Amino acid sequence: MAPPPSPSFTSVLTATESVSSAGPSVAPARGAVVSAIPTRTPRKAIHIDTINQHLRQADYAVRGRLAIRAEELRVRLDAGDTTLPFREIVNANIGNPQAMDQKPITFYRQVLSLVQYPQLLDSEYADRIFPPDALARARLLLREIGSVGAYSQSQGVPYIRQSIANFIAARDGFPADPASIFLAGGASSAVSSLFTTICNGPSTGVMIPVPQYPLYSATLTIENATAVPYLLDESTQWGTDTAYIASVVRNTLASGINLKAMVVINPCNPTGSCLTPSQIKEIINLAAENSFMIIADEVYQANIYQGKFFSFKQMLRELQRDFPGAYDHVELASLHSTSKGMVGECGQRGGYIELLGLDPAVIDELYKLVSISLCPVVTGQVLTELMVNPPREGDASYPLFKEEYDTIYNRLKERAANLYDAFQQMEGVSCQKPMGAMYLFPTISLPPKAIAEARRRGEEPDELYCMQLLNSTGVCVVPGSGFGQVDGSYHFRTTFLAPGDEYVNKIVAFHKEFLEKYA
Amino acid sequence: MAPPPSPSFTSVLTATESVSSAGPSVAPARGAVVSAIPTRTPRKAIHIDTINQHLRQADYAVRGRLAIRAEELRVRLDAGDTTLPFREIVNANIGNPQAMDQKPITFYRQVLSLVQYPQLLDSEYADRIFPPDALARARLLLREIGSVGAYSQSQGVPYIRQSIANFIAARDGFPADPASIFLAGGASSAVSSLFTTICNGPSTGVMIPVPQYPLYSATLTIENATAVPYLLDESTQWGTDTAYIASVVRNTLASGINLKAMVVINPCNPTGSCLTPSQIKEIINLAAENSFMIIADEVYQANIYQGKFFSFKQMLRELQRDFPGAYDHVELASLHSTSKGMVGECGQRGGYIELLGLDPAVIDELYKLVSISLCPVVTGQVLTELMVNPPREGDASYPLFKEEYDTIYNRLKERAANLYDAFQQMEGVSCQKPMGAMYLFPTISLPPKAIAEARRRGEEPDELYCMQLLNSTGVCVVPGSGFGQVDGSYHFRTTFLAPGDEYVNKIVAFHKEFLEKYA
Repeated sequence: MAPPPSPSFTSVLTATESVSSAGPSVAPARGAVVSAIPTRTPRKAIHIDTINQHLRQADYAVRGRLAIRAEELRVRLDAGDTTLPFREIVNANIGNPQAMDQKPITFYRQVLSLVQYPQLLDSEYADRIFPPDALARARLLLREIGSVGAYSQSQGVPYIRQSIANFIAARDGFPADPASIFLAGGASSAVSSLFTTICNGPSTGVMIPVPQYPLYSATLTIENATAVPYLLDESTQWGTDTAYIASVVRNTLASGINLKAMVVINPCNPTGSCLTPSQIKEIINLAAENSFMIIADEVYQANIYQGKFFSFKQMLRELQRDFPGAYDHVELASLHSTSKGMVGECGQRGGYIELLGLDPAVIDELYKLVSISLCPVVTGQVLTELMVNPPREGDASYPLFKEEYDTIYNRLKERAANLYDAFQQMEGVSCQKPMGAMYLFPTISLPPKAIAEARRRGEEPDELYCMQLLNSTGVCVVPGSGFGQVDGSYHFRTTFLAPGDEYVNKIVAFHKEFLEKYA
Repeated sequence: MAPPPSPSFTSVLTATESVSSAGPSVAPARGAVVSAIPTRTPRKAIHIDTINQHLRQADYAVRGRLAIRAEELRVRLDAGDTTLPFREIVNANIGNPQAMDQKPITFYRQVLSLVQYPQLLDSEYADRIFPPDALARARLLLREIGSVGAYSQSQGVPYIRQSIANFIAARDGFPADPASIFLAGGASSAVSSLFTTICNGPSTGVMIPVPQYPLYSATLTIENATAVPYLLDESTQWGTDTAYIASVVRNTLASGINLKAMVVINPCNPTGSCLTPSQIKEIINLAAENSFMIIADEVYQANIYQGKFFSFKQMLRELQRDFPGAYDHVELASLHSTSKGMVGECGQRGGYIELLGLDPAVIDELYKLVSISLCPVVTGQVLTELMVNPPREGDASYPLFKEEYDTIYNRLKERAANLYDAFQQMEGVSCQKPMGAMYLFPTISLPPKAIAEARRRGEEPDELYCMQLLNSTGVCVVPGSGFGQVDGSYHFRTTFLAPGDEYVNKIVAFHKEFLEKYA
């Protein structure tokens, strides 16, 4: 062990640079100070046992052990390792469309490139490179924003909030107020800010679905709040059973927990289910009766493959219209994102939260919180504006936009159906029909020997399954245990973003081998 | 008061849509459930008194009362209000260069526009619009990143981390490891993640300078950790007095607080001071002796108007070289950002943190935390790469880059000097010479009558001064009380980003009137 810091360290001071002792307090002689607390055994300040233990307890499976292993394998492949039984990693663990073969929508990127480099607008070639509506939109946005390199208002650019309000009004048939909208660097960031605002220690309860996107459980764990799980019902397409949820609410309130909010993910991540208007209104009823806020994660609102999307905002406004006064106290947060839908621009970090019914004093606190990190990325705000205000029929960009949008939509729908068909044919696998979002969440019946082996290793059985899938095929999915599931049931979540049948065939073949191995 | 939700609400259910009761638990009859907890007085769930009280206690003056008032005034001006005694708001409260007259550096924006719209690379006009090195850099980055619309690794794009490591190595003369670098959506976001990781309740102490950038106090308050102030010494250009700081450390340790870290802002926000190598090494000595981590906010490292910037990393490595083994346990986090320097791209949210000496298990927890929000904005990462790897002599873009860079630098230096000269001539105002950063932080001697009036109103005296300055001139600065100051001393922080002498003259004239008013 090297000698500890000693008085000789003062030798780094030169006479001219010596620090004045005329500081704000009377200072002892320097030599004495530096040696005052000898550290015979130099130790680190930051220990795993004394850092934030709530963070330590949090789990985030989407980028957890499986994803880290997948990255290791990718590095080996890139380095020319030919000993692995596959040649590529398929990241079906994360909804990251542009890491697959999804191309960005041209109009969005044209406007983004113009706001990044406004000199392009004045180029003599501008009209030959860009359609007139992209040029016009970039000019308009720059007039409203100034530079995308300047901080915007903490809540987001006023013009963009107005544009989002117009979109919401057109979607729902009820007006929206730009003052109620907070732009955010992706929906994850909005959820984190909202939970930091409303959570006040372990007495705060927030209901979350099971299975759920683990952003919610992880963020609540970090906030040291109490996650109150409510099970989705696999037998009814992972629907919400209001009577059952009401019993969860009753039990929660009876236990003395201050039930502040309920998270609903619709369309659902990971199950792909979509709620009906009645299911939504029943949840709003429960919230109205029992005074809890609804946090509606609606980031997959454009990813609907059967039927139509209904927003919580619309359903709330309908109830408020039909039963005047009875729902005025209901508090709702609705989330949207540029990462999903046919936009798929995950890396651009755009999104927003609309807040309804919240006490203005609470909104002031949320405002203060987001102002501490100054503003969400301004180009992400621009992309949000483009998402909510795309080219319209008659615009120069509309035909290409429509073609690109429809191609992405149809491809997602088709890939979902292909994967679903494959799952239908696999022994011991059952799966709901794809309705929405970007995922399938099949149930897998695991052989008792596989379950026993997992228990021996201290792993979840579906984690064992997914790790072996990754190690034999390069296909990375997320075990159901990362989202929560009924005890004794096993699942995995896979995106249906990857192209081609190859990875589907690999999953089918692996599954057969797995069953044989543990028969 | 409208009637509360009642069993009639179940009428929103149609027969075909009614929810199955075959849920995961036995469900009671629906009617009974909906009326089970009648809310005779509908109430909101989210109350100011039961939300996160730590958030409520936090203050962030940079976008606080003054900034909100400035925004109100701006809206009135925009709406044509001619009753105000000024025609424009000068936001000298925030270091937001591109909201003033600072233009982005062309090369950065060219590459950003190309990565946003890669089709430009293939345009027949590409060579006529973009210099070859911008085209080459965009191609290279796209090859490494894929699409800027895809999530990157949570820690940031590996290639960009390597580029940052190269920059640090060239700056310091000591190598850097890309695995120790985390990209972040601006330095604020990095600080927030770091504090969330290392803070574990009120027993966690973190030393922060006074005055300080209130990001630190606010974030520690939200984390419910203990901020331990150490005063900077105004009499020595706001320097650090190590002997005095050592006494703060001793007192803190004696009080039973687990002193985990010390924040040093160098060049300093708000004071503009820069630390000498000796001051830095003395702080490292204290950290080595007393086992606390150093968090070095070095986002203003390019904003140096006298002398040279020395990084904590370089000084630590020199000590490690000169005293083998004695400093190996020292933990250091160094922050950098694309928002400051001559880049000034605040709205793009780029930056990074370099971590040295931390336990890998702790880094894993930080990794988990940042992975929950998936990744920092990828275009911000690209801009970070451009900042650390700008055009070099001989590159096609170098002459323009150099001209733009030098123009910004010289203008900042000149504006700082002008403002400083004005403060020198103001009665009762004293100010350190501008050395670094983007701010001046003059001391103002306020008349007793002004102090008394502020106390009567329950305001800080310098807040009263700054509010009157805003209301009479439109110039928005931040009172010293927002940063912390020795009791009985008063200051304000102003950027020197605004162009022209007009706002300087307004401050001078206001100050004179203020002194007369309260004489």
